[in-house]
Amino acid sequence: MSETNSTDGYRKVHEEPHKKVIRNPYGPNPGDYLSNVTSFQIIESTLREGEQFANAFFTLEKKIEIAKALDDFGADYIELTSPLASEQSRKDCEAICKLGLKAKILTHIRCKMEDAKIAVETGVDGVDVVIGTSKYLRQYSHGKDMSYIAKAAIEVIEFIKSKGIEIRFSSEDSFRSDIVDLLNIYKTVDKIGVTRVGIADTVGCANPRQVFELVKTLKSVVSCDIECHFHNDTGCAIANSYTALEAGARLVDTSVLGIGERNGITPLGGLMARMIAADRDYVLSKYKLHKLRDLENLVAEAVQVNIPFNNPITGFCAFTHKAGIHAKAILANPSTYEILNPADFGLSRYIHFASRLTGWNAIKSRVEQLNLDLTDDQIKEVTRKIKELGDVRPLNIDDVDSIIKDFHADIHTPLVKASDGPSVDSKDDIMLDNVKRPKLN
Amino acid sequence: MSETNSTDGYRKVHEEPHKKVIRNPYGPNPGDYLSNVTSFQIIESTLREGEQFANAFFTLEKKIEIAKALDDFGADYIELTSPLASEQSRKDCEAICKLGLKAKILTHIRCKMEDAKIAVETGVDGVDVVIGTSKYLRQYSHGKDMSYIAKAAIEVIEFIKSKGIEIRFSSEDSFRSDIVDLLNIYKTVDKIGVTRVGIADTVGCANPRQVFELVKTLKSVVSCDIECHFHNDTGCAIANSYTALEAGARLVDTSVLGIGERNGITPLGGLMARMIAADRDYVLSKYKLHKLRDLENLVAEAVQVNIPFNNPITGFCAFTHKAGIHAKAILANPSTYEILNPADFGLSRYIHFASRLTGWNAIKSRVEQLNLDLTDDQIKEVTRKIKELGDVRPLNIDDVDSIIKDFHADIHTPLVKASDGPSVDSKDDIMLDNVKRPKLN
Repeated sequence: MSETNSTDGYRKVHEEPHKKVIRNPYGPNPGDYLSNVTSFQIIESTLREGEQFANAFFTLEKKIEIAKALDDFGADYIELTSPLASEQSRKDCEAICKLGLKAKILTHIRCKMEDAKIAVETGVDGVDVVIGTSKYLRQYSHGKDMSYIAKAAIEVIEFIKSKGIEIRFSSEDSFRSDIVDLLNIYKTVDKIGVTRVGIADTVGCANPRQVFELVKTLKSVVSCDIECHFHNDTGCAIANSYTALEAGARLVDTSVLGIGERNGITPLGGLMARMIAADRDYVLSKYKLHKLRDLENLVAEAVQVNIPFNNPITGFCAFTHKAGIHAKAILANPSTYEILNPADFGLSRYIHFASRLTGWNAIKSRVEQLNLDLTDDQIKEVTRKIKELGDVRPLNIDDVDSIIKDFHADIHTPLVKASDGPSVDSKDDIMLDNVKRPKLN
Repeated sequence: MSETNSTDGYRKVHEEPHKKVIRNPYGPNPGDYLSNVTSFQIIESTLREGEQFANAFFTLEKKIEIAKALDDFGADYIELTSPLASEQSRKDCEAICKLGLKAKILTHIRCKMEDAKIAVETGVDGVDVVIGTSKYLRQYSHGKDMSYIAKAAIEVIEFIKSKGIEIRFSSEDSFRSDIVDLLNIYKTVDKIGVTRVGIADTVGCANPRQVFELVKTLKSVVSCDIECHFHNDTGCAIANSYTALEAGARLVDTSVLGIGERNGITPLGGLMARMIAADRDYVLSKYKLHKLRDLENLVAEAVQVNIPFNNPITGFCAFTHKAGIHAKAILANPSTYEILNPADFGLSRYIHFASRLTGWNAIKSRVEQLNLDLTDDQIKEVTRKIKELGDVRPLNIDDVDSIIKDFHADIHTPLVKASDGPSVDSKDDIMLDNVKRPKLN
């Protein structure tokens, strides 16, 4: 570590580039001994939670298409609507089990023997059992007490285990459940030997540190894996999922674009963004990220929604840089303003230079792409002209190119036509583009 | 606390409703002594960060309209684009300062005397100064070392202070900055007497516990307020903002719909959802939440985007419940599946009953709304018929009503027409609706 005293008395520390390997500042916290940030798994629930999205109606053909796409993407598990929901739901479940996918197929049922008996006949690799444990759900949903819940859970779990398939037991509304009740029931089912237990923020209001505490406590009580399910009502589903993994949870429930009840759950794409920032190698080794956009488009079309303009990764401007100060640094080294590499997702980066917020470094890059010859001072002068027009009205790429070319023509003869230079599209990494309207799908 | 031993050996605890006042499980953690969750403030940056959104071009008229709407909503501060960005940017800043809004007006500049001199002449109530402190930005953006940064900061801060207005000093890319560098510079500027210091997750990759640690540490070094600025590349901006408040930060930068560089920053509406779950009284006392939807529509229209289908609060299905098991409990007591009260935002709750996932409780509610007379067994029978049709194709409200009415007609004579019953719209709280397509804006 270099340390000097500068003349103004300000202590100067670490001024030289470090020679040692730099730890990823967004990587797993080395103090989290139980963390599964680098060994998490996905339970993809587009075909269960996602079917509870207001707009969702999936035909069997569409379900098969989505299941295959999820499997190809690398989903570890695919969860399906309960076969009890309707006759066709049962047939769909059976059909998807027969596809021979790499992903394990799960279905999701109430903690009832009548549900369990039908679920195990569908051919699934495992059954996710859920029951409300908060006093709200005990009072207004199923009306049972904790003693009844434990008894029912034991019967259902023993039955499903006897069929030799995976069994998960989850509470519902876990964060409004009595902690003693919760730990009691989890300890009970862990002893019987469930594959995993689940916690669920059914109302979508948990916050990250609350999640960390609950998972950490639960981890000290059970020996099986922990799965987590976060609704997104207060916009914290991705962060809560990440924090649960830090505390020792291993599996995260997701859906494509987060579709589900109300405004949904942890979105698959957003979670991928979160996880790749923490452990790029693990994420790239397991999931085909370049298929993410197609997967999202498939589901968005099926449920008739647009990809949100601000979607992580695939939002139309997720890799668009606009302010002059940002563009300058991005052009010098993309990681200055970007940890995520768009190429990992089969996408490109854009420098938005057609606005009054542009800077001369962005314009210089454009001048070079147009294969024109201007000095830095000339570029600063033409940048001033561009900003003047940008003050008056929205600019598009042609406006800026015209100003640059006119300016260049005034200086040089003859005019170098844009067609003389390389095509903009031939620049592979730093694409310059004007984004005027969201590219909806 | 009641405790009994049930026959199956499962310990039964807390089975009776608690008589004591129940603590909000999503409220502030009583162990966070420095928390500002119940005393936070908003620095609304739609007119600064938001102008860096790819699609943004705001005329002065639009800026004034947005500034007034933000002021009316209750924003504590409104931050504007640097007057150095362009000539019109300077004029816009001056014009908004003259509006006489309740909110304090800020502008945002580089840590340079040339910027500061122009900023203080615009009439703003305060200046937000920012400089990159990570080695990435020091190398690829401004090229200065920490000693230079400290010297520049002192000069700029002393100058702005001499004008009697607020001054914030923020690092940029704080989470990739050397912690010793950071604490040194913050301690220096705190001693000079800045109004507040800011931290910024400029690349949008910080996670909540990392945020908590940095803010907690910073809080032990400075005596002034702490402001935080979170980008949303990995979907954690809202959670990070909340966690920063828990650790002692006081001010959160937001923009309407989160618009900003790339996929943006902490969205105002999403943060309101997060905060109202923690302290409803404080949020309702300060912010006009029923204006949120209009505010979002205003900005969405100005930048030509749709409200994301999954937007917290105002997404078209944020208060839509679909699965039969959910609908049953929601009808009995809305807080079973909903902490946020849609009425707080001037919105309504919907039970989506026209699908194969519906349950007989939801259909019963519909039967009652149609003023028809069916027994529970009959309702279960008609629910079965509705699910059968829902297996074949998407249903709309008319499909379901037809099935119910035909079924009713087969039992009763004469047929009770729907028009004989009360209008569905006359039910005020629990609205039953069929949501077929997103209501974009």
